[in-house]
This record gives sequence, C-alpha cells and structure tokens, in this order.
Amino acid sequence: MKNSSPEYLANLYKNALLDDVIPFWEKYSIDEEEGGYFTCLERDGSIYDTDKFIWLQARQVWTFSMLYNRVEKRDQWLEIATHGYQFLKQYGRNKEGNWYFSLNQQGEPLIQPYNIFSDCFAALGFYQYSLATDNKEARDIAIATYQNILARQDNPKGQYEKSVPGTRPLKGFALPMILSMLNLELEEVLDTNQVQQSIDHCIQEITDVFWDSKKKIIHEYVLQDGSYSNSYEGRLVNPGHGIEAMWFIMEIARNRNDQELIEKAVQIVLDLLNYGWDEEYGGIFYFLDAKGHPPLQLEWNQKLWWVHLETLIALSKGFRLTDNEKCWKWYQKVHDYSWSRFPDPDNGEWFGYLNRRGERYTPLKGSKWKGCFHVPRALYECWQTFEELTKLQKSKQT
Amino acid sequence: MKNSSPEYLANLYKNALLDDVIPFWEKYSIDEEEGGYFTCLERDGSIYDTDKFIWLQARQVWTFSMLYNRVEKRDQWLEIATHGYQFLKQYGRNKEGNWYFSLNQQGEPLIQPYNIFSDCFAALGFYQYSLATDNKEARDIAIATYQNILARQDNPKGQYEKSVPGTRPLKGFALPMILSMLNLELEEVLDTNQVQQSIDHCIQEITDVFWDSKKKIIHEYVLQDGSYSNSYEGRLVNPGHGIEAMWFIMEIARNRNDQELIEKAVQIVLDLLNYGWDEEYGGIFYFLDAKGHPPLQLEWNQKLWWVHLETLIALSKGFRLTDNEKCWKWYQKVHDYSWSRFPDPDNGEWFGYLNRRGERYTPLKGSKWKGCFHVPRALYECWQTFEELTKLQKSKQT
Repeated sequence: MKNSSPEYLANLYKNALLDDVIPFWEKYSIDEEEGGYFTCLERDGSIYDTDKFIWLQARQVWTFSMLYNRVEKRDQWLEIATHGYQFLKQYGRNKEGNWYFSLNQQGEPLIQPYNIFSDCFAALGFYQYSLATDNKEARDIAIATYQNILARQDNPKGQYEKSVPGTRPLKGFALPMILSMLNLELEEVLDTNQVQQSIDHCIQEITDVFWDSKKKIIHEYVLQDGSYSNSYEGRLVNPGHGIEAMWFIMEIARNRNDQELIEKAVQIVLDLLNYGWDEEYGGIFYFLDAKGHPPLQLEWNQKLWWVHLETLIALSKGFRLTDNEKCWKWYQKVHDYSWSRFPDPDNGEWFGYLNRRGERYTPLKGSKWKGCFHVPRALYECWQTFEELTKLQKSKQT
Repeated sequence: MKNSSPEYLANLYKNALLDDVIPFWEKYSIDEEEGGYFTCLERDGSIYDTDKFIWLQARQVWTFSMLYNRVEKRDQWLEIATHGYQFLKQYGRNKEGNWYFSLNQQGEPLIQPYNIFSDCFAALGFYQYSLATDNKEARDIAIATYQNILARQDNPKGQYEKSVPGTRPLKGFALPMILSMLNLELEEVLDTNQVQQSIDHCIQEITDVFWDSKKKIIHEYVLQDGSYSNSYEGRLVNPGHGIEAMWFIMEIARNRNDQELIEKAVQIVLDLLNYGWDEEYGGIFYFLDAKGHPPLQLEWNQKLWWVHLETLIALSKGFRLTDNEKCWKWYQKVHDYSWSRFPDPDNGEWFGYLNRRGERYTPLKGSKWKGCFHVPRALYECWQTFEELTKLQKSKQT
C-alpha cells in the first residue's frame, strides 16, 4: 500500500463511491422509458440486456435510499430510489405477495417467485426507501414481505423445490445469513421479541451449526440436524460468503456490546482467509471443496469482485473493533490485490470477474448478478470505518 | 499430426478405447455393494462422491451395451451393463414412470424428475441393453419412456418450470437434438410413421429454426414461433452442442441417402468451428454470446473435453462422407489440440476441463456431468470412421 493512513483510506473510499461508482449508475442504469433500472451494462455503460432482475432492482433501491439516508439528502438520489421503488411496487409481486425472480423491460413477469432472496432484497430495499421518504406503503410492504419470508423459510422454493423430501434434508447457510442482515436493518420496525429471537437463532446457526470449528470453514449446506453431509452440497465452501456473513455478525454484536462475539467473528474471518486465499496467484477462491476434491463449479478458482469487497469490509471492521494486527496485515494484502485489479480507471465502476491469475476475462460492469450493490455498499462501509479510525487516531494523539 | 494415415488413426482410437478408457471405468466405477456406477472419480480413479446421477448411470449402461453389441461379445461388458440396468430399473423412476435426476448411493431418490434428459438417456441405455440381451422388459421400458418423452415434450419440466407462461415462450435446441439421437437409435422398434415424422420435424427444427443461416450460428433457444429472442437465453451459443447435433444429422442423412443434407450438416460444422474457435489460445469456446456481449456463464471461455471429442467425430465423419478438404484441415487442428491436452498418460481416461489457455484446472475423471460416455463414444465413432477410410483407401489402391 502506498499510503495506509486511515485518513487517506477514508478519502479513497469516499471519492471512489461519490465521484466514480455512483455516477456510473446514475448515468447508465436508469430506464427512463419503462421504469426501473438497467443492470446489464458493458464496460462503457452501454446496455446489452434489458431484463429486470428483482434482486438487482431492489438492491439498487436500497443503495440510493441508503445514500440519501446516511450520506446526504440529494434530490437526485431520492428520485433514483423512487424510480425503482415504483417499478417494483407495480410489477414485482404476484397475487400472493411473493416476489418474482425477473421481469422483462416492461415489467411483465418472466421467472416465477422460486427464489426467496428476491423477497429478502425487496424487504431491504423497501424498508430503506421508507426511511428516506417516511412512505408508509413502502414500510408496510417491507414488513409484510419480512413476515412472508419467515413463513416461507422452511420451504423457500415451494413447488419449485426439486429435492425429494426426506432423503437428504439439507439447509442452506444463505438463509440465516440474509436473515441476520434483514433483522439488522429492519430491527426498529419489527416486534422486539420476534426480532431478538430471530437474531439469536441466526447467530447460533451461523457460528455453531454452519461454522465447522474443527475444519475452520463454513459449510454452505448442512443436514437439518446440523450434521455434515458428505455430498457436493455438503462439501461446498464459499469463503467470500462466510466472510460477508461475519461482518453482519460484527454489526449485530456491536449493537449488543458483545465483544466476545466480535472476537469470534474476526477469528472466523481470519480462518476463512487462511483457507480461501490462493497462495500461488493471490486473491480469494470463489468455491472450494471441504475435502479438497474437485468442486463442481467450473468457476471455482475465479476471483470475484464481491468476494474481495466483502472481505475488505470485514477486515477493516474487524481491525476497527478488535485492534487485531492480523486483521490489518490481511487488510493490506487484500487491499493491494483488489485495488490494483478491479477498478476500471477509464470508465468508472469495478470489473467483476477475474480468472485465477487475476486477469479480467469478461469486461462487464453489470449483469444478471452484478448490479449497483456490492461495490457502493463496500465503499460506503470502508469509508465509514476508516473515518472512525481517523477520529480514534486523532483522539489518541490529542 | 505425426501420422495422419487412416490406418494409424483407426488404431489410435481403437487402442485408446479398449486399452485405456474402458479399462479405467471397468476398474473404478462399479459399485459392488449397492449396484450402479460411481462416476465421481479423481484423476487416479478414487471415488470422491457416491451419488448416482441418472444421466450418467444410463449413459454407462448404453456404453457397455453398445460395446457388447458393436465391438465384441465380452461377458464382462454385458455384466457391467446388467449391473447398471438392474439398479436403474429398480430405483430410477417414480410411480408415473418419470426418471429421477439423481439418487443416493443406495438408490433412494434425491432430485425429482424435473429433467427430461434423464428419460432420454434412460431410453437410449435401456434400448441398447435390450439389443444386447434380447430382454423384453428393457425394451418395453425404453419404448414406454420414449412415448412418455414425446408426451412431455411441450412442458418437459412440469411443475418445476420456473418461467411464467406467455411472457417469453422459449424453446430449446437440446430437445430436437436429443430426439434425433433417440429416433436414430430406437428407429427399428418404433412405429415407422411416427418415427419418420419425428425425424423430419427434428431436422427441420435444427437446420431451419435453430440454425441461423445469416449469423452462421445455432441458437440454444428461440421463441416458440422460431424467431430470435434478444435475451441471455436467445443470444446463447454453445458451438460444441451444435457440432454434436450435426453428426447426428449426418447419420440420419446417411440412412436416408440424403447427400444434400450431409453437405449442409458439414457446412454448419465448419461455420460453427470458424465461429467458436479461439484464435488466441486454440480450442473451442464453451459458450459465446451471439451479439458478442459478455456471456452469463463464468466458464464461457473454458475448453471442455466433450466439445472437442464431438468435433472430432463430426469432422472425421464429415470428411468420410463428403471428401471436403476443409474438414480434413480442421480435423488435424482439433486432433492436435485435443490429443495433446486431454488424455491422461499416467492414469488413463481423459481430463475434462481446461482453462482458456488449455491448462488443466481440475483433475477429475468423472463427476456429476462427466461419466463413461463422451470419451468412449467418440473413440468408437472415430475408430469406425477411420477404419472405413482405411478400407476406402485400400480399395482405391487396388
């Protein structure tokens, strides 16, 4: 790192967010004709596909609402959030209130509500939007969606569930992970008992059930009783996914003043990095097999933008909250890897996908899966953390 | 190529099939305890997962029955075919006669019959097995499965279909492609009118509807009315898939003495190779976007074993049937690429997955998707073609 002062880093993240990344989405992603956002954007921002994916639509509502709520009351940000909110409110749900997976440009439904994460991101986006506008309807839809997620959580895919009941009853790490995020964000508006119970359950699932303290990995799937399943799903490890969940846990623990839980989350981040770091070419692997067998995912050794950004959040927060020097060493390593490869100096925003060697193999800025979310959220979170560290440093000096 | 005489090549393929690849599966894939086959095999043949995937179970029944029927009446081959046949007959179907997608080692169903290609490979395997044994039950199940496929072909995924009816009604290239294979194999035992009608329909779909004569590509999906869909699915091109279908078409055309159709299929192979060949690193891309946009598949630039083997079949057959020198030039290029990278000189069988540069990035010999099928089928087909060419050459010399 050229400059590792918290002040320098706070500015680096702030400027990247406000002068580079957000302007990219402001300029290229708004569908003025049909509403909502374009997310399938080439390197230069030109649109190559017009479908509307609920995950990404709702995440962009969240991002612009969050910026409005937490950074600055810019009219343009609220307008952009409203633009997506209205499109989603009108077209996003079926009659039962379940969120579709995708719509075409005009908002007609393409893919059925088989994926409960659409609902999760819709609840996050609508609630954040309701805070920006004091919009009761947005808040009501967010709460109803949250309740619907809880009601559906034991069979989230409904009729689209392809596994035969009983033979190998797996549960996924993604659900407690996203629920902890949801509880963290919607806490104020939910029933206190319900939300505390749900948070307790999430923490327990994540840190006791999915976290394998012997192997020092997080399993993406375990059996319903919490035991290990020796199957493709059971052996699957997604280090970035686990690391992302750990900074949610750090935030929850911080709210609860639970330093022990913070320390545990930080240790898990460090363990996952030791496990997931590619010693040969650098960067964090996308998928690994817990027993070292060939992963099924042909993209297993690729280096993805969000994995590295979530890691930068987790490490900077971890260092901020524990002063653990190992966090700081790892932060610098992941910082150097990420900042030298992912940002696009010519067109703004970050590239998404590198091969094992760290070379870009697809130039897209947005797609069915990459939108206006991980990059701005990480830039915001790291900015805040380094600002806190700057203040701490100054208060120590005086 | 060191030696490009048909006689040398016939021997190369024959020896690879009989002395290298088939012994690998004979040695490592038989589940003596629970029946059926292991397909998830490491480089050295050791088993890393015990699930039974219907595609691969049925394909291995086909391979060993085919060898018995076409190469030599070896008892061991028939025993191995019987071993898989009995397991599949006992555990493979639900009450409605639809084939599951996967079972656990003991044969208990894991994944529901959402995937009609399970049924297609079951029909192929069971019919080939019935020819080996004159087993009426195997033939009856094959025919019932074939009829069931025809009945389900308009909604092959049933309740598991996630697209909303009407918004963007797509149809896939894979179905007419596999149906042409099914018709080719089961022709003798099916109603003549029905099979000829089905073949005519497949040829028309493949060469008129999915083949785009302007862009010189085969679309993996088109709209129900045959028109182009500007969507991720509509833009998807899988060159190896199209090339594989073309050698099915060559075989159909050969049976019908339709030289014009043969010439057309050969020209499509050459066009797809021009389109799909990686000029920078060599090899055939896995996926491309018809408009040159970033493909959604993160593995798009990888080089897969089956793509190259199907191409070797198509080019050798194409050369044999048309004497087209372009086929021969391409054959040599793809031969050199494939034979220098895919076979494993230490442990037998072929590796499956190379990165864009042609380097191996996963050492597996078998998995959820790679089994005892593409390699032995291609080795057999090329062996036969080069034997035919050897005979032709000798008859010309005398």
